[in-house]
Amino acid sequence: MKTIKPLREKKNTAILLIHCPDKQGILATVTEFLNQNRGNIIYLDQHVDRKEEIFYMRVEWELDGFAIPHDKIGEYFETLIANALQMNWRLYFTDDIPRMALFVSKMPHCLFDILARYTAGEWDVEIPLIISNHETLKPVADRFGVDFYHFPVTSENKAELEKKEIEILKEKEIDFVVLARYMQVLSGDFVNHFPNKIINIHHSFLPAFAGAKPYHAAHERGVKIIGATSHYVTSDLDAGPIIEQDVTRCSHIDTVEKLIRKGRDLEKIVLSQAVYKHLQRKILVYRNRTVVFN
Amino acid sequence: MKTIKPLREKKNTAILLIHCPDKQGILATVTEFLNQNRGNIIYLDQHVDRKEEIFYMRVEWELDGFAIPHDKIGEYFETLIANALQMNWRLYFTDDIPRMALFVSKMPHCLFDILARYTAGEWDVEIPLIISNHETLKPVADRFGVDFYHFPVTSENKAELEKKEIEILKEKEIDFVVLARYMQVLSGDFVNHFPNKIINIHHSFLPAFAGAKPYHAAHERGVKIIGATSHYVTSDLDAGPIIEQDVTRCSHIDTVEKLIRKGRDLEKIVLSQAVYKHLQRKILVYRNRTVVFN
Amino acid sequence: MKTIKPLREKKNTAILLIHCPDKQGILATVTEFLNQNRGNIIYLDQHVDRKEEIFYMRVEWELDGFAIPHDKIGEYFETLIANALQMNWRLYFTDDIPRMALFVSKMPHCLFDILARYTAGEWDVEIPLIISNHETLKPVADRFGVDFYHFPVTSENKAELEKKEIEILKEKEIDFVVLARYMQVLSGDFVNHFPNKIINIHHSFLPAFAGAKPYHAAHERGVKIIGATSHYVTSDLDAGPIIEQDVTRCSHIDTVEKLIRKGRDLEKIVLSQAVYKHLQRKILVYRNRTVVFN
Amino acid sequence: MKTIKPLREKKNTAILLIHCPDKQGILATVTEFLNQNRGNIIYLDQHVDRKEEIFYMRVEWELDGFAIPHDKIGEYFETLIANALQMNWRLYFTDDIPRMALFVSKMPHCLFDILARYTAGEWDVEIPLIISNHETLKPVADRFGVDFYHFPVTSENKAELEKKEIEILKEKEIDFVVLARYMQVLSGDFVNHFPNKIINIHHSFLPAFAGAKPYHAAHERGVKIIGATSHYVTSDLDAGPIIEQDVTRCSHIDTVEKLIRKGRDLEKIVLSQAVYKHLQRKILVYRNRTVVFN
Repeated sequence: MKTIKPLREKKNTAILLIHCPDKQGILATVTEFLNQNRGNIIYLDQHVDRKEEIFYMRVEWELDGFAIPHDKIGEYFETLIANALQMNWRLYFTDDIPRMALFVSKMPHCLFDILARYTAGEWDVEIPLIISNHETLKPVADRFGVDFYHFPVTSENKAELEKKEIEILKEKEIDFVVLARYMQVLSGDFVNHFPNKIINIHHSFLPAFAGAKPYHAAHERGVKIIGATSHYVTSDLDAGPIIEQDVTRCSHIDTVEKLIRKGRDLEKIVLSQAVYKHLQRKILVYRNRTVVFN
Repeated sequence: MKTIKPLREKKNTAILLIHCPDKQGILATVTEFLNQNRGNIIYLDQHVDRKEEIFYMRVEWELDGFAIPHDKIGEYFETLIANALQMNWRLYFTDDIPRMALFVSKMPHCLFDILARYTAGEWDVEIPLIISNHETLKPVADRFGVDFYHFPVTSENKAELEKKEIEILKEKEIDFVVLARYMQVLSGDFVNHFPNKIINIHHSFLPAFAGAKPYHAAHERGVKIIGATSHYVTSDLDAGPIIEQDVTRCSHIDTVEKLIRKGRDLEKIVLSQAVYKHLQRKILVYRNRTVVFN
Repeated sequence: MKTIKPLREKKNTAILLIHCPDKQGILATVTEFLNQNRGNIIYLDQHVDRKEEIFYMRVEWELDGFAIPHDKIGEYFETLIANALQMNWRLYFTDDIPRMALFVSKMPHCLFDILARYTAGEWDVEIPLIISNHETLKPVADRFGVDFYHFPVTSENKAELEKKEIEILKEKEIDFVVLARYMQVLSGDFVNHFPNKIINIHHSFLPAFAGAKPYHAAHERGVKIIGATSHYVTSDLDAGPIIEQDVTRCSHIDTVEKLIRKGRDLEKIVLSQAVYKHLQRKILVYRNRTVVFN
Repeated sequence: MKTIKPLREKKNTAILLIHCPDKQGILATVTEFLNQNRGNIIYLDQHVDRKEEIFYMRVEWELDGFAIPHDKIGEYFETLIANALQMNWRLYFTDDIPRMALFVSKMPHCLFDILARYTAGEWDVEIPLIISNHETLKPVADRFGVDFYHFPVTSENKAELEKKEIEILKEKEIDFVVLARYMQVLSGDFVNHFPNKIINIHHSFLPAFAGAKPYHAAHERGVKIIGATSHYVTSDLDAGPIIEQDVTRCSHIDTVEKLIRKGRDLEKIVLSQAVYKHLQRKILVYRNRTVVFN
């Protein structure tokens, strides 16, 4: 499938994402744990929210030479460190390639951008399937050799079809879902199956112009800048934790059609940047806000 | 008062701002009128809103050698051109220096930025007075030698004090008002005295976070970009025609206090850019949207 | 080939791009010519460079109902208008679809971006062929069904192979060439065959970091912003007229590899925006600078 | 002098800026040192340059309750920590208010911006004096109540006058110098007295358009974006470590005069942001590049 060689060599590393109540010495405790077990740290970033008194951390270290076996790290970390500090933590290994499903409708720009990166080996990801409520983009899926499933969702059959979608996502061992201009609202039940694991792109600078037809609304309001927002999907429409935003200038000469055209370039880049951050395990969510490490 | 020399020589020119229903030949008609009367055009820009079918134009020409006397231009233009084309037009002369009033509360950054430009001669404007609901910024007004009036507006005395403010603005022949972080809502009656002649700076990327405490709201929502918006004031709060907007990036490390600090630099530049466009007579308003010529 | 429907309906229009010495009445003369012959103007923009005293104009009008036949417009315009005003002009018809050749080396991101837009019908263009000095990207060309020619250019065979390339470009009636990260310097002779018809993307904010390895140089210099520049190719390396530029922030945490990654997104968008401007006939070149109409 | 109240309460804290060869456990060692001595850390950021193998760190902690007396912290840190790790470190206390000298020529915009922030209490700084090679801006200094020294530097008297300038800077206990559009090149000797303590604003996007008249050069080259760069001054003109850069869009309609006008807003904001980072002790310099912590 990948006709172009991946640009980066894989490193065999582990990543810990942590948040917990802040107190003295957490950073020292975690880094000491890794150092003492001969884990060579290649990335460390931390943040303390001093108002909420929450400590956030992302640390990545090489597994070669690490004293604790691969499959025991989680257990040891929980027992020796996390438990006493009331840590909420997740552990990832970079040789576990995440599996992503794409949901699309009729607009191809985000889909092309993601499949191009995938094919070029820009991202360490597998994309086993594309799901759509229309058949319009099947030729794109075919061209890139990715399986395409057509679920013509309506208000009547939504519950039934979403159930089938969830089944196929489980069967294909999908880790997260990307809505690449999928013009359907997912049910709360669907969303609950993938908490902070569904990434959407909304074609406005949220919270401005949530909901339908944001470019029309932006034109009507006469804004001088338009934007795009990628966020995790929650049961509140367009109200989930924001991952990335970007904007571009517009003016009185821009019709709605020109805003839509300009917006497409924003949308695809903002969505892909959010997906890349997610793939790198650089995002923590706390109370509907994200911590996105550099 | 101006201790630093103005940077530009004054040119003796006239400016026409026009909008009217679009039809063939308007542009040719207006430019021919100026050419035939030996008006050397030094600026011309036009825009056609093809959806609304409205023609917009700004043209500036040198008065030296122009065949029609200064004080007859309006009459001739109306009779010969504008009347037949149902034009809505305004005529300005660059040797009429606009007179601006500043309204402030307690925050000095926009006030300083405007007074610095004024003192440096960056703008062709007179600032005869500053009005405030607090005495906090009187020392700044004194330092720059501008008269300062204190009107301690409350909900009880608002109608009465606004009446006095309007009187003094009329007496001082004020052409337009700039709200440089004035933390009071003006009454509809006050606004109606100055249609499209009151410029406000709102400390958010409108229409997101209209109303009070936008930086707190932006932090709560977890946006990755904050903005500022300058607009003409209408009777709808924060809903008037937008003149200029700008944004800057923020992240999870930015507390509300840091957003406020970052925002200050945006606010002062965005407000001053809007004032400069207004002073240059480059803004037309139509149906709550602006046409801002380059 | 185009599996996705074009997004826009074709309008049957003509476009004139003009520059000439500035004098009174040019704008009126041109618009009158179109109006009198019942040409409905749907776009008009003009610019006067008052220092160089050059007038620039772009006008587009509907051919339906236009009094002068399609194939006589150029002749009439030259005789009646352009000759007396020493105009340099070009005439385009929007139903003549431009034919573009892509030159690539090993990096696929710009190629993918252009082929995606092409396939989605975002642009009115034909892409009959891709030329490369490597075979790396042949699978991409195959996937999109575009002919791929491999010319393994070296310093020894360059003159010979460029001659063959020119032959094939002529044979395929190519109007303009896009260098989508083509890592070869074209000879002056090749460039002279396509004046202002070869668009390059340089991976720096020109004129900073012209030449090889700009991201390495940017990292070494410790800049806080990186950029990309699209320009017409002239015989001076990276010194041709600039069409479009854009930038993105970087910091001390960005290694050369991260700059390269960030830069890719800039490069593809900046190049595609330049190509789109070229396709819309919105660019005029005068003395190594561009006028790019909105 | 400060007629407007400072916006922030002073906290009594210490700041350590460190760089040293990278090895395991440095972060843990430093944070343990502070924790064990009851120093409540309120800011910590670190960066590892994995290519150069250099560790960088900024840590700030509250002095209230810290076990080591104020005037012994440096000695203890050197003995117990820094010596063994070959650390290059600097220690600051936030109740030591830095003293800054301003150098200006004729242009007031950066001067006004800095004095406005100073007067408004936006920065914790003292500005005991302004030095200029012209008398033009003395009225601005007078208006803000800051001493103004006129040194009419020429190529003949430069050595002599710079000597006097250094004397007065030492006498006034100046910590760092800000060149707020000072249009004179300082000698290498002068620069050597203030290593990484002279901040300049250059009116271009360095390294593009170093040297004189960058806006003229930018216009000539036809760039689509202009910029401004603040950097520490070294003996190489416009080649010192870059602190901050920003850009704004321009187009063919921008004359040199318009670029200069647009550039002024960039220059003053970029310079003030660099000064603020310096005042916060957030900048480390290594091999002509800066690490600028958030």
